[in-house]
Amino acid sequence: MAIALPKTTEQVAEIVKWANDNNIAIVPSGGRTGLSGGAVASNGELVVAFDKMNKVLEFEKTTQQVKCQAGVITEQLQQFATDNELYYPVDFASSGSSQIGGNIATNAGGIKVIRYGLTRDWVMGLTVVTGKGEILELNSGLIKNATGYDLRHLFIGSEGTLGLITEATIKFTRPPTNLTVLLLSIEDMTKVTELLNLFQKDVDLTAFEFFSEEALQKVMAHHQLPRPVETQGAFYCLLEFDADSEERLEKALESFEAGLEQELILDGVMSQSQQQAEELWKYREYISETISARKPYKNDISVTPDKVSEFLAKVDNIVSEQYPDFEVIWFGHIGDGNLHLNILAPESMSYEDFTAACEQVNPLIFNVLKNLGGSISAEHGVGLLKKPYLNYSRSDAEIAYMKGIKAVFDPNNIMNPGKLI
Amino acid sequence: MAIALPKTTEQVAEIVKWANDNNIAIVPSGGRTGLSGGAVASNGELVVAFDKMNKVLEFEKTTQQVKCQAGVITEQLQQFATDNELYYPVDFASSGSSQIGGNIATNAGGIKVIRYGLTRDWVMGLTVVTGKGEILELNSGLIKNATGYDLRHLFIGSEGTLGLITEATIKFTRPPTNLTVLLLSIEDMTKVTELLNLFQKDVDLTAFEFFSEEALQKVMAHHQLPRPVETQGAFYCLLEFDADSEERLEKALESFEAGLEQELILDGVMSQSQQQAEELWKYREYISETISARKPYKNDISVTPDKVSEFLAKVDNIVSEQYPDFEVIWFGHIGDGNLHLNILAPESMSYEDFTAACEQVNPLIFNVLKNLGGSISAEHGVGLLKKPYLNYSRSDAEIAYMKGIKAVFDPNNIMNPGKLI
Repeated sequence: MAIALPKTTEQVAEIVKWANDNNIAIVPSGGRTGLSGGAVASNGELVVAFDKMNKVLEFEKTTQQVKCQAGVITEQLQQFATDNELYYPVDFASSGSSQIGGNIATNAGGIKVIRYGLTRDWVMGLTVVTGKGEILELNSGLIKNATGYDLRHLFIGSEGTLGLITEATIKFTRPPTNLTVLLLSIEDMTKVTELLNLFQKDVDLTAFEFFSEEALQKVMAHHQLPRPVETQGAFYCLLEFDADSEERLEKALESFEAGLEQELILDGVMSQSQQQAEELWKYREYISETISARKPYKNDISVTPDKVSEFLAKVDNIVSEQYPDFEVIWFGHIGDGNLHLNILAPESMSYEDFTAACEQVNPLIFNVLKNLGGSISAEHGVGLLKKPYLNYSRSDAEIAYMKGIKAVFDPNNIMNPGKLI
Repeated sequence: MAIALPKTTEQVAEIVKWANDNNIAIVPSGGRTGLSGGAVASNGELVVAFDKMNKVLEFEKTTQQVKCQAGVITEQLQQFATDNELYYPVDFASSGSSQIGGNIATNAGGIKVIRYGLTRDWVMGLTVVTGKGEILELNSGLIKNATGYDLRHLFIGSEGTLGLITEATIKFTRPPTNLTVLLLSIEDMTKVTELLNLFQKDVDLTAFEFFSEEALQKVMAHHQLPRPVETQGAFYCLLEFDADSEERLEKALESFEAGLEQELILDGVMSQSQQQAEELWKYREYISETISARKPYKNDISVTPDKVSEFLAKVDNIVSEQYPDFEVIWFGHIGDGNLHLNILAPESMSYEDFTAACEQVNPLIFNVLKNLGGSISAEHGVGLLKKPYLNYSRSDAEIAYMKGIKAVFDPNNIMNPGKLI
């Protein structure tokens, strides 16, 4: 395996032309934080890594847009926004090492999607090198541009199968001023939709997360943290909103009280300071890391938010029926219908046997998902790991059109072959 | 010319299959409000109109999403949102007759883009019939769905050249509670960027429009309206924001006062009621209709908002040098860099001579645009009228890829042939 570390878009174009001439496959590599094997080079491909294309190039104050190279780290971009009194709202656990090019190639989501959308919503322009080695400047920061197919949106989420993203123009927004967190315990998930309806009617939520009592117990034990809410529930919801005026704070409190009265909530706490807000976020943010030693089998799935509780109940049933000794850890983003299903092996089981068992359950889970119109990969992409299951979320006709599009941009099939489609 | 009026997606698919078998070209027709000739059938094509597919199908409260047929009128959708205490924020002059399918096919923008984005940002799912006659269900309302190329975004803005949009899932949002309008007179356009910076720093603007003194004079004369701001300027800016709390209203007032102090503003008025806000909007909204009797030559162009004043000055120079007796009426959306350039013929000139003269000026204007990285069609689409100029905004390589994509979805080139590309 060879690694190329280009410094410019032109160098990337040269590499792709050379690869075409010599029939060498290319695998793009960003921060190597992917969870679906999209950047795995397992067949002697040439890895093109963007670690040396890590510069912020230009910032324009009026448009609040920044142009940067693909290798810029997410956290670096967030910090650059903060330094300019602005805000880059796409945020997730791997912000410290994921690169902006990789975020765009997978249309990364994260924890603030309910308010701020996905990476797609912040990309105002792209420079790409297609699978043919041609450089395209896509949209260049224009807000309105009705001149044909928006190829920018085609490259977003394409997982390196059409070409390589080398530069991006990203827009920032005004930062929130007083992010406030509510942590609520709830009896079960059946009323979570009503709870979401109640709050979103009057409050601009920036997050509506959830996790199970099992997840909470593991975090408390691992990090020696106290129980955050007095009354124990089966699940917990973490709500965040910007209390930037008295009116807004009052509306959130009214919704909270209505939730107690309507018995949608068992108990809850609200942060009184930024520090308290951060403390409460830990119970949600620490989950992934806490269970990582147990090598969980991860499924990153989504339905529309109204179907979350139905879907969760059905999957819980499937897993507990098939494998009563497997532990199930649920957490994720109710606000956008994205559930992270993490299955933990019994201590006695080998990792290979466990993975094989989980893969046997996948078709059952994905069938439920298909019937509910859901997605087999909400935000982790398809890569290698989800490719066998793509037909649960996309029709044969759609997959055929995707292959047709790939052939237009990458006729020799050298760009990340074997991934996605 | 024949017109088909299908009632279902399946009927549309049958029509497209039949057209493929008989080599008949299809032109989709929505509300027939387009300004670029995208729905013109001039070669005996079969027109497929969506007037009988005008039903709202489903509404889901939690997701705030509505599924509707392509022939639903924009205003009907806005009203449906209001009836459910929600808001569909895409709004423009032709809302009373434009159809949602046409809005999506051209990615319509309008007057609230600075805050709410374009049609694209509200489309959560599409049902389309491709040029091959295949039905695709694209995304189905999921917020997070990282399973390959987002074909939904490819169809948005494709102007009926890839297939026909038959149904759409649209999301709504919470309605604003107290929309407030500031109408400001300014000395010239050189400081408009500073003015935008000043306000957007602290105020969530829902609109930042502008128009020239010439435009204002015509509206006042035609509609017998009084001068809205005491001190006359060369241009006027109309700002709208949601004064949903005292804090927000104060911040807007502070920005206004700072604008006066810094001599960015000559004078201004602020609405004190919804009725006054509507009265102030009239000065901007009436322009198009007021000058329509003069059959203006329209160019709908955009640059990034920081370049608006430079671009406007350069175009003003070109037109006044080339045709000193032509009247130029400027208005548009500073907040998103979209300028509507309307040129009026001298009374003595024939319409044909006038149009020919304007077309001679187009390459000069589009060259300026190209050098500034702008778009030759900000929100009206390409259709027939802008097709000869597409290469000012898109490179040859991009146009070649667009043609490649069209061939994948419409191999017999029956979908709106001769339009866009």
